[in-house]
Amino acid sequence: MKPTPLKENWNFPSGEPDIRHHVVIIGSGFGGLFAARALRRVRVRVTLIDRTNHHLFQPLLYQVATGILSEGQIAPATRDIFRNYDSMHVVVGEVQQIIPDEHTIEVSQFGGPRTIGYDSLIVACGSNTTYFGHDDYRKNASGMKSLDDALFLRSKIFGAFERAEAEEDEERRAELMTFVVIGGGPTGVEMAGQLKELSRRALRCNYRQINPASARVVLIEGTDRLVASMGERLSRIAARDLSRMGVEIHLHAMVTAMQDRVVEITRADGSTLRIDAATMVWTAGTEASPLGAELAARTGVDLDRAGRVRVAPDCSLLMALDDLPGVAEVAMQSGAHAAHTIGRRLKGDDAMRAFHYHDLGTLAVISRFRACAKVGPIKVGGLPGWLLWLVVHVTFLTGFKNRVGAMARWAVSFIGRGRYERALTGGWASGSEPS
Amino acid sequence: MKPTPLKENWNFPSGEPDIRHHVVIIGSGFGGLFAARALRRVRVRVTLIDRTNHHLFQPLLYQVATGILSEGQIAPATRDIFRNYDSMHVVVGEVQQIIPDEHTIEVSQFGGPRTIGYDSLIVACGSNTTYFGHDDYRKNASGMKSLDDALFLRSKIFGAFERAEAEEDEERRAELMTFVVIGGGPTGVEMAGQLKELSRRALRCNYRQINPASARVVLIEGTDRLVASMGERLSRIAARDLSRMGVEIHLHAMVTAMQDRVVEITRADGSTLRIDAATMVWTAGTEASPLGAELAARTGVDLDRAGRVRVAPDCSLLMALDDLPGVAEVAMQSGAHAAHTIGRRLKGDDAMRAFHYHDLGTLAVISRFRACAKVGPIKVGGLPGWLLWLVVHVTFLTGFKNRVGAMARWAVSFIGRGRYERALTGGWASGSEPS
Repeated sequence: MKPTPLKENWNFPSGEPDIRHHVVIIGSGFGGLFAARALRRVRVRVTLIDRTNHHLFQPLLYQVATGILSEGQIAPATRDIFRNYDSMHVVVGEVQQIIPDEHTIEVSQFGGPRTIGYDSLIVACGSNTTYFGHDDYRKNASGMKSLDDALFLRSKIFGAFERAEAEEDEERRAELMTFVVIGGGPTGVEMAGQLKELSRRALRCNYRQINPASARVVLIEGTDRLVASMGERLSRIAARDLSRMGVEIHLHAMVTAMQDRVVEITRADGSTLRIDAATMVWTAGTEASPLGAELAARTGVDLDRAGRVRVAPDCSLLMALDDLPGVAEVAMQSGAHAAHTIGRRLKGDDAMRAFHYHDLGTLAVISRFRACAKVGPIKVGGLPGWLLWLVVHVTFLTGFKNRVGAMARWAVSFIGRGRYERALTGGWASGSEPS
Repeated sequence: MKPTPLKENWNFPSGEPDIRHHVVIIGSGFGGLFAARALRRVRVRVTLIDRTNHHLFQPLLYQVATGILSEGQIAPATRDIFRNYDSMHVVVGEVQQIIPDEHTIEVSQFGGPRTIGYDSLIVACGSNTTYFGHDDYRKNASGMKSLDDALFLRSKIFGAFERAEAEEDEERRAELMTFVVIGGGPTGVEMAGQLKELSRRALRCNYRQINPASARVVLIEGTDRLVASMGERLSRIAARDLSRMGVEIHLHAMVTAMQDRVVEITRADGSTLRIDAATMVWTAGTEASPLGAELAARTGVDLDRAGRVRVAPDCSLLMALDDLPGVAEVAMQSGAHAAHTIGRRLKGDDAMRAFHYHDLGTLAVISRFRACAKVGPIKVGGLPGWLLWLVVHVTFLTGFKNRVGAMARWAVSFIGRGRYERALTGGWASGSEPS
């Protein structure tokens, strides 16, 4: 069956009506963004579909959750990024179904259905938070994947201090001032570190009834190491730096029960610990978007353990993750690789080129001026690590104004002590927690 | 009856236990903020109560609604502003009742009741949007009074362009790209101007199906002049400048009916006009918070036409508005005046000093580099007016970092063309309008 045309009256102002090949990219995360960028040099029409209207700089979500950056600073409008790329469309909508046999995608847009045809398809729809079968944990322990997650957590965190100040019962107050972060990867480590920074520096002198510095921050990790991908030495440095800041670290510990404001963890020796906490953050697991699994079922492609599509070595079927970590860089590089493959094919070069991931490293901020960084062969902690973090993040933030804006905010938060974004809105504003 | 003590264990870290006189301020707007600042030099304990955790720079709300500034930039946390003012408490909670006979206030905090005693009381709870009896208009035409209002409008405005891009029906599309602003005071004028700036400059090249510059912006005013308080010449300049930008202005026009996506206006000659519009903004009326009316009933004080408490000329009973306009400056000056009155009384000086409002002027931005400004005897439009606007707003923004941050954003939006805050969140993100 021939691909359905995208839309007859679809207006590509570039005035290159002879461009026929239509590439559809699903997802405006790092993978989709880098694929679209690479396709600028290829004579194709591109449609980028995402549920949201923004590209999200996920590694800095924790800074939105802790009031350092505003949502706009890590989430520029996708169509603004590509405003000068005339032969590209941005579609805000939810992909319902991919029908590979017909080369079409079904999208729901503001309640209405729409069918979009494609010649080549790049699926870069990223990953969701997984609770490993315990979906009931979701309502107590928020994930950290979307802007909505971060804004919800921001209200919850700043709201917890407000409630603690108003609370007269000692036990309830302690519960409000306890923050549990589950998962000791980079996101968990950064979140725990920032919660301590917040309570010890940013909120100093703000309260009269409570001492925010006495907030308890607990970090729970199932394996024996924090930021395991960075190597043993950096894991030790991360644990040492966080401990010195007052973060309570439990390694070899698994969450075995969770209820409203209570989490139970079980250590390797079988002992259990019950922690009363009003705020819990879940950074322990990610799973691929269900779209991949569905597509795999339709095309007979294998899935790996995390539900990710196994792809041909040249990413030819789809852009997706295989045995590689689900980090921004893999997405960027494989997104670009998939785009280059499409470009080569259009020139008649069908030779498969395997995708080689260039591991540029991993970074995790511990506190202001301290970070663990593994960049190429370099593994550093402390201030050198933090400077590396700064350089990398400024480089990869999308758009010049976001770079300058973020640096200004970092100056405010790290050299100064303020947090810009503390306004409680919605149900949180009037002191009643939204349900 | 003796005033109930605030709380026995209320801990004032300043270590000045001999401070007995307790001033309670209701409201953290300009009035409450300036009263609290003025009380720093008086030996009193102060409790500032507000429903929200922030001081809101209301005159810039329209910039949040149109994506220029982030919420934190116009809404710094109140307790952070006063962090070094040791003998002051900030309480986030909703005032339920003032009981003047008992010198107490009943507050609801996170669902729990609390009674706070006072020796002196300053009521500075500002104003709400009024629909002049047509409360059914509220669900169609959003007000512009709180941060929540502005964030809702921001999603609605940027969401309308997204929906228009996805819409295939011509009529529905036109409806989505029509924005009606009701009320031609400074807020209405600024909103209408920014909507045009947004559609003509900020969204340029962003869409493929729609031309955002063709958005219809309608400004409706009941009297015969825009920004009437600025004098006739500036009213004419404002109308001329907005017309040149393409804003459709209806003077002498009243809203006579409103339904979902439809507003009917009736002109002075009795003719009616029906406008189909997905987005309507109501800036036509404000009324005093009901707290004033309640208090007046209890104490036998008069109310004026807008439900505002008539006060003694020295603002001695309460800080409130009388025959003066409900603008930030009046609030600032009378707030400070009320505080000074309390200070003098504590020194035994009971002589009444009448409050004289120093009218510093009114400002309204039309577009980038153009504003109408009436400052003292000076009345200017165009670039000189805009420069005056810039100086005044930078001066009055609370906190050094907000000043620098806002100026950076203005550079981005006015010299450049970008809008930082365009991220759709909540129900808006996935293309389904929240109900």
